Amino acid sequence: MKKNYLLTPGPTPLPAQVLEALALPIIHHRTPQFQAVLKEATEGLKYVFQTKNDCFILASSGTGAMEAAVANLLSPGDVAVTIQGGKFGERWTELCKAYGVVPEVIDVEWGKAVDPQEIDKKLKANPKIKAVFTTLCETSTGVTNDIEAIGKVVKNYTAVLAVDAISGLGAIDLKTDDWSADVVVSGSQKGLMLPPGLGFISISAKAWKLIENAKSPRYYFDLRKAKKAIDKTDTPFTPAISLITALNQSLKMLKEDGLENVFLRHRKMAQAAREAMRALGLELFAPQAGSDVVTAVKVPDNLDGEKLVKTMRDAYGVTIAGGQAELKGKVFRIAHMGYIAEFDIIIGISCLEKVLHQMGYKFDLGAGVRAAEEVFLK
Amino acid sequence: MKKNYLLTPGPTPLPAQVLEALALPIIHHRTPQFQAVLKEATEGLKYVFQTKNDCFILASSGTGAMEAAVANLLSPGDVAVTIQGGKFGERWTELCKAYGVVPEVIDVEWGKAVDPQEIDKKLKANPKIKAVFTTLCETSTGVTNDIEAIGKVVKNYTAVLAVDAISGLGAIDLKTDDWSADVVVSGSQKGLMLPPGLGFISISAKAWKLIENAKSPRYYFDLRKAKKAIDKTDTPFTPAISLITALNQSLKMLKEDGLENVFLRHRKMAQAAREAMRALGLELFAPQAGSDVVTAVKVPDNLDGEKLVKTMRDAYGVTIAGGQAELKGKVFRIAHMGYIAEFDIIIGISCLEKVLHQMGYKFDLGAGVRAAEEVFLK
Repeated sequence: MKKNYLLTPGPTPLPAQVLEALALPIIHHRTPQFQAVLKEATEGLKYVFQTKNDCFILASSGTGAMEAAVANLLSPGDVAVTIQGGKFGERWTELCKAYGVVPEVIDVEWGKAVDPQEIDKKLKANPKIKAVFTTLCETSTGVTNDIEAIGKVVKNYTAVLAVDAISGLGAIDLKTDDWSADVVVSGSQKGLMLPPGLGFISISAKAWKLIENAKSPRYYFDLRKAKKAIDKTDTPFTPAISLITALNQSLKMLKEDGLENVFLRHRKMAQAAREAMRALGLELFAPQAGSDVVTAVKVPDNLDGEKLVKTMRDAYGVTIAGGQAELKGKVFRIAHMGYIAEFDIIIGISCLEKVLHQMGYKFDLGAGVRAAEEVFLK
Repeated sequence: MKKNYLLTPGPTPLPAQVLEALALPIIHHRTPQFQAVLKEATEGLKYVFQTKNDCFILASSGTGAMEAAVANLLSPGDVAVTIQGGKFGERWTELCKAYGVVPEVIDVEWGKAVDPQEIDKKLKANPKIKAVFTTLCETSTGVTNDIEAIGKVVKNYTAVLAVDAISGLGAIDLKTDDWSADVVVSGSQKGLMLPPGLGFISISAKAWKLIENAKSPRYYFDLRKAKKAIDKTDTPFTPAISLITALNQSLKMLKEDGLENVFLRHRKMAQAAREAMRALGLELFAPQAGSDVVTAVKVPDNLDGEKLVKTMRDAYGVTIAGGQAELKGKVFRIAHMGYIAEFDIIIGISCLEKVLHQMGYKFDLGAGVRAAEEVFLK
C-alpha cells in the first residue's frame, strides 16, 4: 500500500493520457497512420521549441542527441567553446574530446551561471571557433544560464550556438528562433512528461551549413539522413513508435495549457520550493541563478545527505535526487518540472520536514509547507 | 470497428503483458527498484542470446547497436568483411564506410545465403581483416544465413564475427557462445515482442580485446562506459526505463515457453506460410534458405505488388510488408515472428487469398489456408 511520489529531475511523472497511449497496440511505422502521428509530433515539437527550424526525433536518450550535435556540426581538429559548471556542461567537453574536437573550456563555478561576456572574449580571441556548447538548465546544480544573452553574443560570430535543453524544454522559456539558438537538444523524460527514450534536436540554417561540411563519422545520428527522411514524413531508421505516439499526448496537454501558463506554473513551484527551503533554514546551492525546474539545496553540515534522500524514498516513497559527482552527499535536489503540480511540491516539502525532524535537524515544523502555501496563494 | 492485424517483420504485435508494463508509473533509474529490473533484464537477455558474454541494453533502435559494433571494434583504416545480400547486409558496409573502415564486400545474390567458404577465402587472403559482419536473418529477402558454419570458419582467424540478429533473435536458434559469435546485435521490436526503442549487443572476450584498442570516436555507444556501468548494475546514460520494464515481461514469456518451443512455433508457422504460397501457385523469393521469421514471396508478373499490400492493409486491416529497395513492388513479405501464432498466419493467408481473388489472380480459393492447416495439424 505504500504510495510513491516522483520528484526527480528526470524521469518526471507520467500523465494518465501518456500511460494510456503507451499501452495502445503498436502500428507499423511505414504506414499513413504513423505518418500522421510523426507529422503531428514534429509540428508539436516546433511549438514547444518555439522554432521554424527543422526538428528531429531520435530513438535515443538526450545524450544521443547531444552526440548528434557534436558529430554533425564538427570535424576532427575543429575548435569549440564548451561551458562547464556542472555534470552536463562537462558532457559537452567530453563529447568534443571523443570526436577529436578541441574544446576551449569556460569553467564556471558550480552553482553559478556563465557570464556571456566570457563567451564573447573567447570568440573574439579565436575566430576559428566553430561552435559554442552550453546548457539551458544544469540539472546537477539547479542553475539556469541566460540563453537569450548568450545568443546575442554568439550571433555576431560565425560560430553556431548549441544548447542542451534536455532539462528545461517545455518547462521554462527558450525562444529558439528569437534567441538565435542554432541547435537545441532535448529529451523526453523531463518537461515533456514521457518515459526516457526519445532525443530531440532542432537545426537552424546557419547550423546546416556546418553540417554539410562536417567530417566526423556518423550514421545512426546522421542528420542529413534524418532530413532526407522527414521531408517524406519518414525516419531513416525504425522510430520509437510507442513513445512518439505518447509524445503527441503530452504535446497536446502543453498546447492546451499554453506555453506561457506552463512556464508560470513552473516559476511558481520553484518560488515555493525556494521559499520553503529558506523557511526551513536551509541554504540554496544556486541562490542567484536558481532554475525553475529543479532546486538544489545544501545539506546542513552535520547531516548525512545520502541518508536523507534514501529515507525519504525507502521509508516514505518520496523520491527526490541526491547530489551528482562532486556534489554527492552535499546537496539534495527537488524537481518541479513536467507533470508535477502545486500539491506535489507540498508533499515533497512535507516529507523533507518529516525526515529532517527525525534526523534531529532543528526547525519550526510546518514552516516549509507554510512558506510554499503562501507563494501558491499569491 | 475495423480490426487490425499486424504481420510485419518488425514491429511485431505486443502481448497484453507488455502493454500493461508500458503503462505502469515510471520509476527513477538510479534506485534499487530499477537496479532489480535491469539485472533481471540483463540475465534474461543472456538466456535468449544463449551466452555468458556481457550483454548491454542501449536506448536506440537496432541500427544504433550495429553502429556500436562498428565504432567500438574498429579504427579508421581497418579492414572488415561485410556480407551483403539484402538491405540490412548493405547497412554493415555503409556503417564501415561512415567510420573510415575499408569493407571487403562479399556480394551475395539477393534471395541466397552466403557460402561460408567465401568468407574463408577472404580471411585467408588478407590476414589484416579484423572483423566479419553478417546477418542472421536478412529481413529484406527472408533469407537466414548459416551462422554456425560461418562461426566455424571465422574462429580460426584473429578476426571477430559480428552478427546482426535484429531479425531472428528469440525466434530462431542462435547459439552465441557455441557458434563463436563474438558480437551479436539485436533490437526490441521483432522476436522480443516489444515496441522499437531498445538495441542489444553482446561482446565476447575476443571482441573486448579489439574494443580496448579501437580508435573510432564514440561516446553514447561507448561500450567501455557501458561495461563500467553494468558492473555496478547501472547504465552510463538514462536508460529507456519503461521499455526495459516491459522487456522483463516478454523475457518471462520466452522463458516460460522455453527457447526450443519458441523456435518450433516459428518453424511451423514458416512451413505453413511456405506451403500456403506454393498451394496458391506463388513462388518463394528464397526457396532454399527461407527464414523462419519472414517469408518473401514473388508478386506474379501481371499483378501490382504495392496495390496488393495496400489493399490488404487499408481495406481489410491486415498489414504485411512490401518489398524494400530493389525489391519494391516485386515481393511481399509475411512475418511469422514474435507474438504471432498459428491462427494469425491463417488470417494473413485468408486475407491474401481475398485480395488476390479480387485482383483477378487465378487459384483455388481456400487452397492456401488448407495447406497451412495441414502443416499445423502435423
